[in-house]
Amino acid sequence: MKDIDIKWLEEPGELNDPILIEGLPGVGNVGKLAADHLIEELDAEQVAEIHSPHFPPQVLMHENGTVRLVNNEVHVWENPDGGRDLVILIGDYQGLTGEGQYALANAILDIMDELSVGRFYTLGGYGTGQILDEARVLGAATHEPLVEEMKEHGVVFSKDEPGGGIVGASGLLLGLGKSRDIEGICLMGETSGYLVDPRSARALLEVLAEIFEMEIDFSDLEDRAQQMDKLTQQLRDIESQAGSPGEEGDLQYIG
Amino acid sequence: MKDIDIKWLEEPGELNDPILIEGLPGVGNVGKLAADHLIEELDAEQVAEIHSPHFPPQVLMHENGTVRLVNNEVHVWENPDGGRDLVILIGDYQGLTGEGQYALANAILDIMDELSVGRFYTLGGYGTGQILDEARVLGAATHEPLVEEMKEHGVVFSKDEPGGGIVGASGLLLGLGKSRDIEGICLMGETSGYLVDPRSARALLEVLAEIFEMEIDFSDLEDRAQQMDKLTQQLRDIESQAGSPGEEGDLQYIG
Amino acid sequence: MKDIDIKWLEEPGELNDPILIEGLPGVGNVGKLAADHLIEELDAEQVAEIHSPHFPPQVLMHENGTVRLVNNEVHVWENPDGGRDLVILIGDYQGLTGEGQYALANAILDIMDELSVGRFYTLGGYGTGQILDEARVLGAATHEPLVEEMKEHGVVFSKDEPGGGIVGASGLLLGLGKSRDIEGICLMGETSGYLVDPRSARALLEVLAEIFEMEIDFSDLEDRAQQMDKLTQQLRDIESQAGSPGEEGDLQYIG
Amino acid sequence: MKDIDIKWLEEPGELNDPILIEGLPGVGNVGKLAADHLIEELDAEQVAEIHSPHFPPQVLMHENGTVRLVNNEVHVWENPDGGRDLVILIGDYQGLTGEGQYALANAILDIMDELSVGRFYTLGGYGTGQILDEARVLGAATHEPLVEEMKEHGVVFSKDEPGGGIVGASGLLLGLGKSRDIEGICLMGETSGYLVDPRSARALLEVLAEIFEMEIDFSDLEDRAQQMDKLTQQLRDIESQAGSPGEEGDLQYIG
Repeated sequence: MKDIDIKWLEEPGELNDPILIEGLPGVGNVGKLAADHLIEELDAEQVAEIHSPHFPPQVLMHENGTVRLVNNEVHVWENPDGGRDLVILIGDYQGLTGEGQYALANAILDIMDELSVGRFYTLGGYGTGQILDEARVLGAATHEPLVEEMKEHGVVFSKDEPGGGIVGASGLLLGLGKSRDIEGICLMGETSGYLVDPRSARALLEVLAEIFEMEIDFSDLEDRAQQMDKLTQQLRDIESQAGSPGEEGDLQYIG
Repeated sequence: MKDIDIKWLEEPGELNDPILIEGLPGVGNVGKLAADHLIEELDAEQVAEIHSPHFPPQVLMHENGTVRLVNNEVHVWENPDGGRDLVILIGDYQGLTGEGQYALANAILDIMDELSVGRFYTLGGYGTGQILDEARVLGAATHEPLVEEMKEHGVVFSKDEPGGGIVGASGLLLGLGKSRDIEGICLMGETSGYLVDPRSARALLEVLAEIFEMEIDFSDLEDRAQQMDKLTQQLRDIESQAGSPGEEGDLQYIG
Repeated sequence: MKDIDIKWLEEPGELNDPILIEGLPGVGNVGKLAADHLIEELDAEQVAEIHSPHFPPQVLMHENGTVRLVNNEVHVWENPDGGRDLVILIGDYQGLTGEGQYALANAILDIMDELSVGRFYTLGGYGTGQILDEARVLGAATHEPLVEEMKEHGVVFSKDEPGGGIVGASGLLLGLGKSRDIEGICLMGETSGYLVDPRSARALLEVLAEIFEMEIDFSDLEDRAQQMDKLTQQLRDIESQAGSPGEEGDLQYIG
Repeated sequence: MKDIDIKWLEEPGELNDPILIEGLPGVGNVGKLAADHLIEELDAEQVAEIHSPHFPPQVLMHENGTVRLVNNEVHVWENPDGGRDLVILIGDYQGLTGEGQYALANAILDIMDELSVGRFYTLGGYGTGQILDEARVLGAATHEPLVEEMKEHGVVFSKDEPGGGIVGASGLLLGLGKSRDIEGICLMGETSGYLVDPRSARALLEVLAEIFEMEIDFSDLEDRAQQMDKLTQQLRDIESQAGSPGEEGDLQYIG
């Protein structure tokens, strides 16, 4: 078995100046929620699956009783309005080891080369340790002009955030993409870091919708966000009943 | 030393449309107990041993004072009634790392190719966290028609179980076998997950006996099951004396 | 991607009998503080960056919103007075695994060969578990004549220190450099091991300044040292208020 | 750097039907103490050193201020009486990972092939969890006739000990050596497992001395044993003062 096994289900035709969007599991599952939602709403088509011993030795169940190996998947959306096509990368896991992460990120950049992707967005969460009423979207980029461009869409660039840099696929694709001279932007939705956060995922997608000048239906994501809001409110109630002296909005230790 | 070192003790002749059964250590040791019992009852013959640096650096003692390296073993049972032959894979350990698991699973699939195995069963346990009076046998499969076939033998397919998928050799063989287009079925005996469970192993073997239309003597396994029943009863007694408010059947923390 | 990827930003010309100085993160960050300070004071020029899957899968933020992959860097200072030139190795991380450490140390020794480096100094901290008023500089070397030479500059060689040897890049470069017959000296500033220690870094640099007969402005480092002194004093106050029966100077458990 | 780097300091000439003895760090450091003592008493000569990224990235200090990379070493003792020569393997560490252990054990077996070693003894400790007045020497072997031969020298073979087999170099050399058809014997001195145990090392050497019909001066080892006896007695005193209800001889939790 190859270290990274990319299986094309269908060779994608010539794509129109494509943009890649990556959303793998991570903090608050923000990036994965956003990318999964985008695929569903756009009805994008899966064109490849990626298997690797760098993922866990695990299969997941389909509803019909059959299984599939954990993987990453490449989906393509051909823009019906003649605008730029989208290539969307989602998956069950990131690489388990640092070396696996490097190998997988380089394989994804190879796919970008193959599909002539000139720009990519990586989606993730930025854990603040606090439950906030509104999630800002923080940014990072490979090249300086992209920073100005993103600021026009309300993306926040802050020299102290994220303090420790960006760990995992979203950061690594930027770092490795930069030396291949592909334009890359990382968008990070603020999130507590304690809970899966569909609202933060929505904040990310609103920025993308503005950038791509597309409309996205958020009703599914909003339903999930409201369920999580309810859970969050319950946690706050428990906290205030316990007379916690913590700073307002500070979640402290749940459970 | 090769990454996976397969040593044939005896080149198996042409086998009759063979089926492979895998039973390695895992949850409740259910799969290993079942496969070991099958080899003993059928008096199957060992034909190969598999060594690998992916196993622990360890030897085990024979009764006569000599040692053997920990391994996996391939046994063959030639069906005296002209039915399909069985190839049975057992072992002391699964691969220690995720990468080792992938390498070993692919090596086992190579052996299946070499022996023209058209179908395989992987045996494991499904940890419920509860001690149950009866162990259901849950299933998963590579191809949908196998699901229907297994249901006829009482195997339960449930869209929510196992929730997190199947981790380890039993799942991985299905996931990797599927893309080689070998038919694979995973049978999982329900078990608490806290204790070695010969009764769950028996439940698995009863399904296999029905599928293969063979008779299996369960007396050895039943002796061990009754010993474990006694231990389980003692644990329940301790729990009820302690006035545990836990849900009925819930084992909680033993010890 | 190569296991160790060395990217020359600028091919350094013929250097004048160059000496390499290594200062990577470690105990008290003493080595890194010293080497970073040296680069800043000498205004040394970066000539290469080293990337590797042995570093974490991480990018760091620039102030302008762009990112860079974590790395090690090679800087060169061409001595304006005709003395020996300096090659300075700094970085964000050491290799994460033992195998990564060996691979990176060998790559750095290859760079020394390429630049005809005849001698190198590795800088580190030696954790004593105590806050001391004065930091000694301990030494270790590849060849015995270097020991005598260093003693003349006040470096302490003690048969019992460091007791467990030297772990990480600073030690490994000596161990591997010895068999390539490059002269190597490890200088270790004493430090508590609990806190980042700019004063210990200064002690190291004072030894280097004497060896190289150069003047170094320590004002930046001294500012940071005084900030840390204040923090240390606060910790001692807390300790003495708590009426700790510990040995004098013993920091025990902070926090 | 090679995965296993064997550097011959001196090509050993034709050896007289040599026997290899391995004593690396492990339980109670019994094997290492015994092999180190043997080298010192026989004044055996070092002929090779083994370096590997499978050892920790670490150097150790010589008394003169220079360092050496952690390693394994091969020493040779040419028997002055015309008997079989000895090749003795000692070292600072065993391989850190399972895969490193396999690689190193195979490299040592390659050295045996090269030196025409026909038999080897591996030395280790067997942790009983109890402080015993007398240490038995347990055995394991590659071939059954060796078991009988060892029993004549008082080595104990017990079908239940060691229960979990033998983990690490001492076991692995037997397991891998068996398939190369080299005769191997593992001798394990009983030891509590909590303390370095020179007395158990002496018990091993007494068996070897009888086998090889040689005299070994144990005074150094006996001095260290008596120091440890004193420490053990102090621990027992503490235990009895505390009125421990534990089984006699049971060390329980020290400290």
